Amino acid sequence: MITSENKTPISKIGEFKLIETLTKNIKINNSSTIKGVGDDAAVLKYLNNNTLITTDLLVEGIHFNLIYTPLKHLGYKSVIVNLSDLCAMNATPKQITVSIAISKKFCVEDIEELYSGILSACKKYNVDLIGGDTSSSLTGLLISITAIGEAKEEKIVYRNGAKLNDLICVSGNLGAAYMGLQLLEREKVIFADNSKVQPDFLGHEYLLERQLKPEARLDIIKTLETNNIFPTSMIDVSDGLSSEILHICNNSKVGCKLYLDKIPIDITTCNMADEFNIAPEVAALNGGEDYELLFTAPLSDYEKIRKIKDISIIGSITEDSFGKKLLDSKGNQSDIVAQGWNGLTE
Amino acid sequence: MITSENKTPISKIGEFKLIETLTKNIKINNSSTIKGVGDDAAVLKYLNNNTLITTDLLVEGIHFNLIYTPLKHLGYKSVIVNLSDLCAMNATPKQITVSIAISKKFCVEDIEELYSGILSACKKYNVDLIGGDTSSSLTGLLISITAIGEAKEEKIVYRNGAKLNDLICVSGNLGAAYMGLQLLEREKVIFADNSKVQPDFLGHEYLLERQLKPEARLDIIKTLETNNIFPTSMIDVSDGLSSEILHICNNSKVGCKLYLDKIPIDITTCNMADEFNIAPEVAALNGGEDYELLFTAPLSDYEKIRKIKDISIIGSITEDSFGKKLLDSKGNQSDIVAQGWNGLTE
Repeated sequence: MITSENKTPISKIGEFKLIETLTKNIKINNSSTIKGVGDDAAVLKYLNNNTLITTDLLVEGIHFNLIYTPLKHLGYKSVIVNLSDLCAMNATPKQITVSIAISKKFCVEDIEELYSGILSACKKYNVDLIGGDTSSSLTGLLISITAIGEAKEEKIVYRNGAKLNDLICVSGNLGAAYMGLQLLEREKVIFADNSKVQPDFLGHEYLLERQLKPEARLDIIKTLETNNIFPTSMIDVSDGLSSEILHICNNSKVGCKLYLDKIPIDITTCNMADEFNIAPEVAALNGGEDYELLFTAPLSDYEKIRKIKDISIIGSITEDSFGKKLLDSKGNQSDIVAQGWNGLTE
Repeated sequence: MITSENKTPISKIGEFKLIETLTKNIKINNSSTIKGVGDDAAVLKYLNNNTLITTDLLVEGIHFNLIYTPLKHLGYKSVIVNLSDLCAMNATPKQITVSIAISKKFCVEDIEELYSGILSACKKYNVDLIGGDTSSSLTGLLISITAIGEAKEEKIVYRNGAKLNDLICVSGNLGAAYMGLQLLEREKVIFADNSKVQPDFLGHEYLLERQLKPEARLDIIKTLETNNIFPTSMIDVSDGLSSEILHICNNSKVGCKLYLDKIPIDITTCNMADEFNIAPEVAALNGGEDYELLFTAPLSDYEKIRKIKDISIIGSITEDSFGKKLLDSKGNQSDIVAQGWNGLTE
């Protein structure tokens, strides 16, 4: 929760000084960054590879709730959601710009906290912060990040390349971020009813981390490259498996068969889903915010993929006419339906 | 003003349909755009030139007031402020991404109107819209645009290259956008007092256009190139001449001498300033939002620059120790002080 006790109002130091404070620790690590923060525009040099650009907007009250989201985690996550999009193109993230709009309830120390999370993600992924904009807002906090990456043209993976009989694969496990959110929401309600009750998070660290401090699967990109696996299509799981596989199928003009019991779900996700009386598969299919990579690869890569610990094969690509189907262990088929967990907030 | 009469609520069509509606008319015109809207990231190919990136955030109630700003103009202007930053680096704008957060008061038709302005600016400046993000907002409208451009490395102009004895030059005229804003604010107050009084804008079209529909001076960039004039430093006038010349001087570690009576001010700006009892020079020095280009060039280019109609020579670069001075026609000197017209809202 945001309090202003013993903190510095932003009005006291003004915009220029705030920017100076936030940018003074920024270091440039990539040789493709010619000029970072401090001019009308940043300058990049990508002379041998293609440049990739993606952008995401995070709005207080829509995408995050500061009652249970530490600002440092929020900063970290706002970078990750962008880097994840670059990974989903098989590209390497190199730079970001960060624009924020802040209302009066935030003090200098709050924004420094947010930036420490942003810079921590930059450091971990070797990404340079090269520019941005700072503005006031009449209500709450807004973060708009644009990420820039590079890839050789022939290595870029789009959503539209899935082919008949391709394997459908996903990294890590799904549904954990969603169950982490449910847990946070539950404790928020309990806390609102009785502020003396302290939140009960013991043993749920993994779910909370998946929700509050996700990672971009750059490691998977590298593993695939090392193993000479070249995905035919790829997308990151931000809106839930159902929504993402439909994007791949619709863009590639193919159908698919997903095996419900092959979807990787962590045991802690199952336990929490059980507590909430939710089927864990529902969290995986519709939960979102896992930032895992969903991709298709040629059937001939089966042996190579099977050996990689953190990748699961969950289905295969069919003719378009087959439709997009989910098969349970009894052989029952149902249509896959996109049910993003939050309408206008992709 | 935003009304919902005979319009379609966004909730009725949902996010995906809204994005489809907004992006269906987007055309790609630049060969450097390999893949635009529709995947996790856009793909660009800048193999021979450097890539430049800039970003600006516009927040309702801070940067614009929808009582007197038509959404189409707002869309146009939000693109222009970014393209202007690229021009200030001597770069050619090529692509933009557009992220918007919208509250419930906006209908589909409103956002289409906003986009028609965005696309109109793209068309005029031959820029491709290649991606973005759409989100809800709890209050008002927020627009975050990132612009990408290209330039040969040796042609890029930074803020820090001004040299002793360089000429200080500015394009067009200054203060008009600020007087346009004063006029709009005055009519807003009158309208609030008595809604039967219609705003009196006759004869003030130029000032209103400078405020509501500014242009980026890509033409000046081209004129300078044609005339073999290579600026040593450059910045666009978004916060007022005072603030911008100080940026150049501080970054270049030099001083300057600006001649008050050389600052180009349009006659309509003078007239309106007179009506408001403001010295027109104050509007030029501190008004901002003119999006003209302020640059320095070697003294040896004097004859070439003098002949260009839309560029004024307004001063010269001095030793740092001289300070940053304004000289009036009587020879009185005063220090140049940055007085951006709006604290945290660059």
